[in-house]
Amino acid sequence: MTSPAPELNLSDYANRLPGSPVREILHVSQQPGMISFAGGLPDAAVMPEMPVLDNLAAISQYGTSDGESSLIKELVKWLGEEGLPCSEEQVIITSGSQQGLDLAARILVDAGSDVLVEDPTYLAMLQVLRGLGANLVPFTLDEQGVDLAGLESLLQTRKPRMIYLIPTFQNPTGYSYSEQERRAVAELIDRYDVTLVEDDPYRVLNYDNAFTRPVSSYLTSAKWLYMGSFSKMLWPGLRTGFVIAHPELYPWILRAKQATDLHSNRLGQAIIGQFLKEGRLPDHVAKLKAHYQKKRDYMQKLLQQYLPDSVRWQLPAGGMFFWLTLEQDTRSVLQDGIEAGVVALPGTPFAVEKSADNTLRLSFSQMTPEDMEEGVKRLAGVLAR
Amino acid sequence: MTSPAPELNLSDYANRLPGSPVREILHVSQQPGMISFAGGLPDAAVMPEMPVLDNLAAISQYGTSDGESSLIKELVKWLGEEGLPCSEEQVIITSGSQQGLDLAARILVDAGSDVLVEDPTYLAMLQVLRGLGANLVPFTLDEQGVDLAGLESLLQTRKPRMIYLIPTFQNPTGYSYSEQERRAVAELIDRYDVTLVEDDPYRVLNYDNAFTRPVSSYLTSAKWLYMGSFSKMLWPGLRTGFVIAHPELYPWILRAKQATDLHSNRLGQAIIGQFLKEGRLPDHVAKLKAHYQKKRDYMQKLLQQYLPDSVRWQLPAGGMFFWLTLEQDTRSVLQDGIEAGVVALPGTPFAVEKSADNTLRLSFSQMTPEDMEEGVKRLAGVLAR
Repeated sequence: MTSPAPELNLSDYANRLPGSPVREILHVSQQPGMISFAGGLPDAAVMPEMPVLDNLAAISQYGTSDGESSLIKELVKWLGEEGLPCSEEQVIITSGSQQGLDLAARILVDAGSDVLVEDPTYLAMLQVLRGLGANLVPFTLDEQGVDLAGLESLLQTRKPRMIYLIPTFQNPTGYSYSEQERRAVAELIDRYDVTLVEDDPYRVLNYDNAFTRPVSSYLTSAKWLYMGSFSKMLWPGLRTGFVIAHPELYPWILRAKQATDLHSNRLGQAIIGQFLKEGRLPDHVAKLKAHYQKKRDYMQKLLQQYLPDSVRWQLPAGGMFFWLTLEQDTRSVLQDGIEAGVVALPGTPFAVEKSADNTLRLSFSQMTPEDMEEGVKRLAGVLAR
Repeated sequence: MTSPAPELNLSDYANRLPGSPVREILHVSQQPGMISFAGGLPDAAVMPEMPVLDNLAAISQYGTSDGESSLIKELVKWLGEEGLPCSEEQVIITSGSQQGLDLAARILVDAGSDVLVEDPTYLAMLQVLRGLGANLVPFTLDEQGVDLAGLESLLQTRKPRMIYLIPTFQNPTGYSYSEQERRAVAELIDRYDVTLVEDDPYRVLNYDNAFTRPVSSYLTSAKWLYMGSFSKMLWPGLRTGFVIAHPELYPWILRAKQATDLHSNRLGQAIIGQFLKEGRLPDHVAKLKAHYQKKRDYMQKLLQQYLPDSVRWQLPAGGMFFWLTLEQDTRSVLQDGIEAGVVALPGTPFAVEKSADNTLRLSFSQMTPEDMEEGVKRLAGVLAR
């Protein structure tokens, strides 16, 4: 007698959690000769040398769940300058801002909870929210900015557990909220008392002096969690990000952090703390901005020069991405592009409700000028078909 | 008009997640003059110097969700020698084994799912499982070992999503399954087709040549996840642990890892990988064992010398803890102990169903001989009251 193969008996979370929808494309982009705009990695060429720590023994032992006080102190100082005054008792160091997003969603969202999101939005947060079974309630974000009326009408009819925003150099669209939009959105969030999760990994990559004051800093009554990261500024391999929490939410996210992995790795925290303490960040950020701005400007020039007039986009004021709107469906572009030796990320996996099937996200962060030009030419050839 | 203070609207997970029940005691143990057996930290005095990496740039960029291949390769070699043959395609590096436990529980357990656990068991796993709303189904683990008949009758009547075991130098009891118990438990797990989560952070701290072959290695059909850690061997501050997964569970836990924090910090992984590659682990483990065995033996001598005859315990064959069973309730002992300048961890938070209110967990890992003797004397004075 053969018994049937035992089935996997997994949790709802596991069964709901989507795989990475971009893994295959990133795999294709590894092919020899392929020019890829698909990734979203910072440029290793502009990562600084790590400071040498004189006392490794001091960070060998278990640490505290909130993080290294040396780093937290420097971080609070820096965030004050960036427009988010906070105290050391509001900071939790996380394993990259991805962990912050996961923790925030876990303490706020149940299966079936309404969660307001920009449409399109960051795909790895969609993955987190779908894993938890959240009911995604999208409002439009496009070249005209936030659909404030649409957002308000959703707030009137729903009782969302959280609203997730990437107000500064959004991934994927590159859009950045104006000062007026920041005020207006904060006012709505306060009025309807929703908890804000603000995701802000790109803020220092600001090429046009865009207004970047955190939306969280405008809130007067609503609760908020602000996520930041050193991954786009320094060394993503160290997995060091942070959550700044409204005081009432702080104990809850700290507890979740503690239950999840006790604390973040201390060596990465100490290295970044030391880098900040040595006062190296301002010069480094200036260097980063110049480095990426040059790439962005050249990319803009190439896109204007080679792409058909039918393709629309806005110059991103910061971040790492151009967001192109095409006349044709991205799937055929992707397929033809692979044949022509160029790959970009289709917008589809960033979409919630409104189709993004005619969009492409192009990253310029890691490209050499030569590859950038050749890649844009190849793409233009595909689009002209 | 004053509006009522807005209530926090948190998830079921947040509302269920217990805080750390031992935080206060660990806080008390920081008081000047206090001798503490309460912690569970490895001894920093026996942590080796970290190897110097010659190429920090190589680990600055984002990495892969499974972990550094250099570390995974060394780990597979070592685990083969330890009695758990596995392939590189089964390994996921985690942020300490705590993250492995959290990920395992997340992909296996829903609110209301039955989960079989030893009683008593590791309190931070109880925290994880309670956060998820698991229905804890305990079976007895005491100085007589595993209650196999009790376990089988639970398996006959329940359909548990997982069984959580710490078969080797258990925290808190110090108990280690015999070879026969390992075989018998594995046979039951196979027969009733439950997924095993095996937690094994203490295995190298083996003072009496105890039999430590992983229970997972005996399974022929049931699925399993094996959790290990470098925290008790090397540097806990680096937060580097690992999950070895049954091939069918591997893609699910990898996906959860990716959604949770993308990947573990690369610097810690590279440092530990380098340490293993240099062949330094065997000598270091020998040194660790000698170091802790000496402490354990002296502790045993002191307990025999000073404690009243009414106190019962077994010599732990490995790990970091003595587990004392008293005649009196631990709460009064704790209170009187603090006044007398000695603190130990009450067993209560490790208990699931069976009361552990007359037990104490004493850690010897960090104690000097002088403090150990003075501490045991003080404790004996309290118990003699």
